[in-house]
Amino acid sequence: MNRSPRRRAWAAIAYAAMVLCATALFFVIRSLGETPVGPAQATSRVAPAGPASDALQHLLVTLTAVVIAGRLLGRLLRRMGQPPVLGEVIAGVMLGPSLLGAVSPEAYRFVLAPEVVPYLGIVSQLGVVFYMFLVGVELNPDLMRGQLHVTVATSHASILVPFVLGSALALFLYPRFASPDVPFTSFALFIGIAMSITAFPVLARILSDLKLTKTDLGTVALTCAAVDDVTAWCLLALVVGVVEASTGMAVVATVLTLAFILLMFAVVRPGIGKALRASDEAEPGHGRIALAVVGMMAAALTTEAIGVHALFGAFLFGAVIPHDSRLAHALTRGFEGFVKILLLPAFFAFAGMRTEIGLLSGVDAWVACGLIVLVATAGKFGGTLVAARAGGLRWQSAAALGVLMNTRGLMQLIVLNVGLDLGVITPTLFTMMVVMALVTTIATTPALQMLLRRGFVPDLR
Amino acid sequence: MNRSPRRRAWAAIAYAAMVLCATALFFVIRSLGETPVGPAQATSRVAPAGPASDALQHLLVTLTAVVIAGRLLGRLLRRMGQPPVLGEVIAGVMLGPSLLGAVSPEAYRFVLAPEVVPYLGIVSQLGVVFYMFLVGVELNPDLMRGQLHVTVATSHASILVPFVLGSALALFLYPRFASPDVPFTSFALFIGIAMSITAFPVLARILSDLKLTKTDLGTVALTCAAVDDVTAWCLLALVVGVVEASTGMAVVATVLTLAFILLMFAVVRPGIGKALRASDEAEPGHGRIALAVVGMMAAALTTEAIGVHALFGAFLFGAVIPHDSRLAHALTRGFEGFVKILLLPAFFAFAGMRTEIGLLSGVDAWVACGLIVLVATAGKFGGTLVAARAGGLRWQSAAALGVLMNTRGLMQLIVLNVGLDLGVITPTLFTMMVVMALVTTIATTPALQMLLRRGFVPDLR
Repeated sequence: MNRSPRRRAWAAIAYAAMVLCATALFFVIRSLGETPVGPAQATSRVAPAGPASDALQHLLVTLTAVVIAGRLLGRLLRRMGQPPVLGEVIAGVMLGPSLLGAVSPEAYRFVLAPEVVPYLGIVSQLGVVFYMFLVGVELNPDLMRGQLHVTVATSHASILVPFVLGSALALFLYPRFASPDVPFTSFALFIGIAMSITAFPVLARILSDLKLTKTDLGTVALTCAAVDDVTAWCLLALVVGVVEASTGMAVVATVLTLAFILLMFAVVRPGIGKALRASDEAEPGHGRIALAVVGMMAAALTTEAIGVHALFGAFLFGAVIPHDSRLAHALTRGFEGFVKILLLPAFFAFAGMRTEIGLLSGVDAWVACGLIVLVATAGKFGGTLVAARAGGLRWQSAAALGVLMNTRGLMQLIVLNVGLDLGVITPTLFTMMVVMALVTTIATTPALQMLLRRGFVPDLR
Repeated sequence: MNRSPRRRAWAAIAYAAMVLCATALFFVIRSLGETPVGPAQATSRVAPAGPASDALQHLLVTLTAVVIAGRLLGRLLRRMGQPPVLGEVIAGVMLGPSLLGAVSPEAYRFVLAPEVVPYLGIVSQLGVVFYMFLVGVELNPDLMRGQLHVTVATSHASILVPFVLGSALALFLYPRFASPDVPFTSFALFIGIAMSITAFPVLARILSDLKLTKTDLGTVALTCAAVDDVTAWCLLALVVGVVEASTGMAVVATVLTLAFILLMFAVVRPGIGKALRASDEAEPGHGRIALAVVGMMAAALTTEAIGVHALFGAFLFGAVIPHDSRLAHALTRGFEGFVKILLLPAFFAFAGMRTEIGLLSGVDAWVACGLIVLVATAGKFGGTLVAARAGGLRWQSAAALGVLMNTRGLMQLIVLNVGLDLGVITPTLFTMMVVMALVTTIATTPALQMLLRRGFVPDLR
């Protein structure tokens, strides 16, 4: 193509002429159309109602605020030797009515407009479903098998002791802070569960920050936490079944849940394994990832239909995908970013919005809050300590394990939100339990460092 | 650790005793708590209203249905030589009132429960914001620079001709199908824009399916489509400004938009480039990705505040991130999965739900629909053909380019939804335009194959 300067000039002129002609034509058309003949209204119908037009804007404001605040606070806490995820949780609480709402109601209404609440809720629910799916995908059953004989007992002790202590505490809390119309059984079961949660991901993060992951203590702690997670989620599934259904229905729900778990591990897991072995050479494309997502959503819907929470199905479907397959890596790589960077902060904002430190007014409330922290710690730390010592660990190692298992965090918040949604706990009790989760998580690192400074060697028994 | 069979048996007994004790204790506590003393109601307050408790369930049902239908239809269309994304679009329409709603209203209400509509709306809006961000991130400005002198003229002709023809057609459509109270100027501008869209991603897919990406034709087509996209989005930004504001406000919005574009390219782009060069050695972590997402959301909020759509800001922020940086790769890798596999299908379901073929009743409506398809094709194909021929391409190459530029698809749907949300077009006109987008996209591959069969060699001029 030869392109002399002259030809170039002609091209420029032609281009300018084209743009000018088009503009002129548009204005002619415009003047023709601006006649007083309005549009006919016969065929116009009201469009199906979408979200309020500024819902997206409000949602973006909330997400921006909570992501920024969470990151900044996470950095700050990291310097103080705390796990960064704690920063995101605290950022959510600070942007809620507890701090921002108390200091500047206008700023609070700007960051968390009332009309955004249901949208923020659905986005964070979707995020938590995917998060639990990823937790399931990353679950390493080999880790659990390796030292199963020591750790299952320790782990179950670290669930049962706080569970029993928690339900005993429910005797005190029930007449004071329970939702009206909640039967005691549901309430006690729920408080018991809420006390027994250990936050596997936060625990893993703390261990890796303190360079303890590869030690004996680290392995045992991770195994215990993984067993804890699986057990606690199964228990929560049952509790939700009990809360949502009558006693007769609860039995049906329990049977169906067990049948579903059996189906997943006896049929779905080998099937997925077989399919993956047949095709694991190729990097999974969007089609196979979409299939896994559809399977996860179907499992979530099944458990929801049984009467157990959708989260349990999502977690279970993740758990039956082999954690070291290419599919698992592709799922983690493809979803982790969106879920952890955007959707979990949305969840923290949502949880923080429902946490209202102002509700803890009066000595009574703070005494109850302190009792909850004490009982939760005593149950988790004490239960683990005794069981681990009985299992053959040194006192110091057992104590370190007890401190680690007392870490709560994200998992705890998820459980608490389920309870608040079900109406088992009141906003006041929700706030107390959030305070408990924060205190026990914050206490973990310093307590562990204290043990380490005392010349405690994590590899010896 | 020595572990004789005897010790093992003891451990098992201790474990069983522990579980039994815990269970017994729980039942004792339960009987203590089941006294007729109900919970006090003084401290209980109503929790802030979250989404309806079954909203998540409905949303999961909708997502599952549309992902499955889209994948199946995509496969089918792929076999027929059509781009798979078309399958997802058609699946959305089929699950909407056009087919499923007409055949079985019960099934339709199950898949798309009325209460899920606002939630589906916000999830799909969020998805489209992220999608436009990724389109911006993947935008290759080198491609545009390479053959800029030929292609800018061709590309702008392929926008201006359908734009003028479209606004001329608005003279016919306005009294018949416009929303009440919409001024003609807004309406004509919008119809003009809706005619001038080219779907860059679908085009890229078709070219790669036909193995034309590396040919002269492929390069020119991709360049034209990229220029088209950028131009069309800028125009849409202006049109939204005009529609939402009065004339005086529109001028302000235009000036602010231009200032914002200038700021992004003159200040933000070099800043990002510098920051990336300083740190491009390391794989970007979650912190840096979160920063990019925050920047994108801030840009989206800025354009929304100016009065231009949030999508434009998201796209613009993506465009100022160097497309071959590690950050761009990390963003694509981290968000593509969630956005393309889950959120875009949600958008297709949402758009399909608003498409109602049943609204096209009577000869009049179908004539108008046919006219829209004709004018859109004539404008896009004709404009490209003439400009490309004038720019030095052979007639056959120019025709092939015209066919390619006539591809619409996803971009078109996004623009149409913006128009429906703004109330510029009615659901009837929305449906007609969706039909136009589908027809022109479906026609591309067969028309191009016809040209290829006639011995057309895409590398010669």
